[in-house]
Amino acid sequence: MKKLTHIDDAGRANMVDVGNKNQQSRSATAEGFISLNAETVKLIGENQIKKGDVITVAEIAGIQAAKRTSELIPLCHTLLLTKVEVHCELLEDGIRATCTAKCIGQTGVEMEALTGVQVALLTIYDMCKAVDKAMVINQVRLLEKTKSDL
Amino acid sequence: MKKLTHIDDAGRANMVDVGNKNQQSRSATAEGFISLNAETVKLIGENQIKKGDVITVAEIAGIQAAKRTSELIPLCHTLLLTKVEVHCELLEDGIRATCTAKCIGQTGVEMEALTGVQVALLTIYDMCKAVDKAMVINQVRLLEKTKSDL
Amino acid sequence: MKKLTHIDDAGRANMVDVGNKNQQSRSATAEGFISLNAETVKLIGENQIKKGDVITVAEIAGIQAAKRTSELIPLCHTLLLTKVEVHCELLEDGIRATCTAKCIGQTGVEMEALTGVQVALLTIYDMCKAVDKAMVINQVRLLEKTKSDL
Amino acid sequence: MKKLTHIDDAGRANMVDVGNKNQQSRSATAEGFISLNAETVKLIGENQIKKGDVITVAEIAGIQAAKRTSELIPLCHTLLLTKVEVHCELLEDGIRATCTAKCIGQTGVEMEALTGVQVALLTIYDMCKAVDKAMVINQVRLLEKTKSDL
Amino acid sequence: MKKLTHIDDAGRANMVDVGNKNQQSRSATAEGFISLNAETVKLIGENQIKKGDVITVAEIAGIQAAKRTSELIPLCHTLLLTKVEVHCELLEDGIRATCTAKCIGQTGVEMEALTGVQVALLTIYDMCKAVDKAMVINQVRLLEKTKSDL
Amino acid sequence: MKKLTHIDDAGRANMVDVGNKNQQSRSATAEGFISLNAETVKLIGENQIKKGDVITVAEIAGIQAAKRTSELIPLCHTLLLTKVEVHCELLEDGIRATCTAKCIGQTGVEMEALTGVQVALLTIYDMCKAVDKAMVINQVRLLEKTKSDL
Repeated sequence: MKKLTHIDDAGRANMVDVGNKNQQSRSATAEGFISLNAETVKLIGENQIKKGDVITVAEIAGIQAAKRTSELIPLCHTLLLTKVEVHCELLEDGIRATCTAKCIGQTGVEMEALTGVQVALLTIYDMCKAVDKAMVINQVRLLEKTKSDL
Repeated sequence: MKKLTHIDDAGRANMVDVGNKNQQSRSATAEGFISLNAETVKLIGENQIKKGDVITVAEIAGIQAAKRTSELIPLCHTLLLTKVEVHCELLEDGIRATCTAKCIGQTGVEMEALTGVQVALLTIYDMCKAVDKAMVINQVRLLEKTKSDL
Repeated sequence: MKKLTHIDDAGRANMVDVGNKNQQSRSATAEGFISLNAETVKLIGENQIKKGDVITVAEIAGIQAAKRTSELIPLCHTLLLTKVEVHCELLEDGIRATCTAKCIGQTGVEMEALTGVQVALLTIYDMCKAVDKAMVINQVRLLEKTKSDL
Repeated sequence: MKKLTHIDDAGRANMVDVGNKNQQSRSATAEGFISLNAETVKLIGENQIKKGDVITVAEIAGIQAAKRTSELIPLCHTLLLTKVEVHCELLEDGIRATCTAKCIGQTGVEMEALTGVQVALLTIYDMCKAVDKAMVINQVRLLEKTKSDL
Repeated sequence: MKKLTHIDDAGRANMVDVGNKNQQSRSATAEGFISLNAETVKLIGENQIKKGDVITVAEIAGIQAAKRTSELIPLCHTLLLTKVEVHCELLEDGIRATCTAKCIGQTGVEMEALTGVQVALLTIYDMCKAVDKAMVINQVRLLEKTKSDL
Repeated sequence: MKKLTHIDDAGRANMVDVGNKNQQSRSATAEGFISLNAETVKLIGENQIKKGDVITVAEIAGIQAAKRTSELIPLCHTLLLTKVEVHCELLEDGIRATCTAKCIGQTGVEMEALTGVQVALLTIYDMCKAVDKAMVINQVRLLEKTKSDL
């Protein structure tokens, strides 16, 4: 029976084999931004958002999500992160989230850093959506990625 | 013992009580965009990305993530989604992902729609990162939210 | 830009909309069989398998997996199961697992029953693989599916 | 073939059928206590624990765990919580955690409240273990459980 | 107090200790088959199944499940898979799914390969159940298992 | 914009960096106790609890939870456990649960051992709550923690 073109080996989903790559010390940092109106920024700064302390909850949610990246992104390898840090900085027109992830492993951690940023920003969205109807998430990108031999 | 200001009830994280809200038919649609260079768009269009069929994998990942929103976003309620659809449209300079989520429940589904978009975009990022080093995710936002009595 | 045929609406992955279906009382029963050699059956019957009580562990694993079906099967709806029961019957040449799942909801529970069977059988495989190298899982199928108005 | 006594129906693990119970408004509150030495209490009160704001992280972890109770406790039904609140009160000799969970459903939410308490206390343990080697968790119990017709 | 026989050490569930085993390069391949009627095979081949592209969704679901094997099978160790590949081949009377999993670790990956097969087959079942009422899963078994020193 | 004191670096939640620590063989044992009335102890000993074999279900639930500790405790690192054992001992006035977890890794496994104990005890609570209204969990603590060079 003839197979469909799009399910040929060329286009078949697969997790690439990293078994022959060296264990290296790896790090990645990503960032993203959520726009907030001035009143929302003020409420967050005064910790008056009804759902709680936006900055702290977002940072924790980002850390937890980074650890579960391989569950969310189908072709990501599971990694043992040695460090995750999410930093949400309150600015005049929104919040900038950055996430640094590190591991010792056979493949990079940029998806973990990006996932940490995305879920931190989504958490901010969730906590502020009762008071801000115009939030937009922008500029989610990788800032830096390193690897070095052990 | 004096409690810290930031752990007063005013700023304490909590899942708001939706027990007294009516069951309603709810829907939300969100979108987002990931920029890709021309060569990456061409490879996706021809299904030549090494990790597989980018559009399909991203759509499935988005659907699955939408169902797990309450695990990722700390203060989101668990909902029984009656429908999730993720649509990734290949454009000249990137991919636009849209996600529509529906449920019959006591609270809205915008976080589910946004989570579906974000994870679809992250999946695209993951699948294309070997060939495109300049991807940025932008314009992630809610397009529409409805509720109607049963 | 022309879209690929295989990402047309016709073939796009989607969770079908069950929002307009009635809440009904639903039940499904599935079964499956794992072949075991005579020595393995004897060891299970005498509870001498090194990893522990095969029957009980398999039944619990099946129950837990049935509750998480919508995480495993991409296009399954999340359901609130009102009952799950997994029964592993030790036979002369293997174990027959049956799973009954019930819910009150807008869509059927056959996938939950089948998932309960499959994970129970995989658990038996895992617990016996040190002593039995020829196990095969067969005859996994739906036995019955019912729905009735509330 | 004779079945083992302990796998007779009498002792077989099963999720009880709640399909015939009425939907009711349900609530439960649980509490627990973790002992801390005076220096640890002081560090928490001044937010000087190296891993971060103990009270807030513990409360969020408890809320998230309560939502996932049915994944952890094999025979618990999945419920849609309408409200979860975890409150960690810093005392002179430790922290008392209380958790209130609510739902509209066919079975009670005491396990969700207890799980919220336990994971909040474990989180405190984790965050303080670098400075306190004698923590003990005690008095984890249900305080109140209510149900009322809709 | 006398303990029950079935909870003696002999029959107690436990995850065996692999801490003293060497890190080795490990691989396993499993297969399974789902019978489909001729009309269903035709619909899949033409990508006309309402829920979407059966082959691709099943392959992705299988990959994701293989990564989560230790959550599903109670006594499985968590492993860092370096490679997972699921291949669903459309035949005249059904689909044969094969899964290859690899890792560098202290224990084998046959359960990961089998779980990938089982969830791929369940996903096919789910996507085709609206049009095919007689599907049966058969011949799920391990094909090959290797280990080699690093 | 001035940042809030409580979101200064001093109090920000973070997963500490263990990347520079050596891989060591690590072990931890924790214990806890749930009080039960005499009638409940008798029912468990005779395996007459309606929900099933309390001891076995609790032990399995504890093992599974230990493997998922890093999902529950926000700042815990993911570890590859080489061994988990949960032992529930039926006493005259309750059940004592102990859990031993082992791994080869860069950080300790006491949280895994404690989580195994807590979820085993919660599972006992769940299975006995229909017949015992006065259960209390006490004395959850670390018994021993070791590390040794490879």
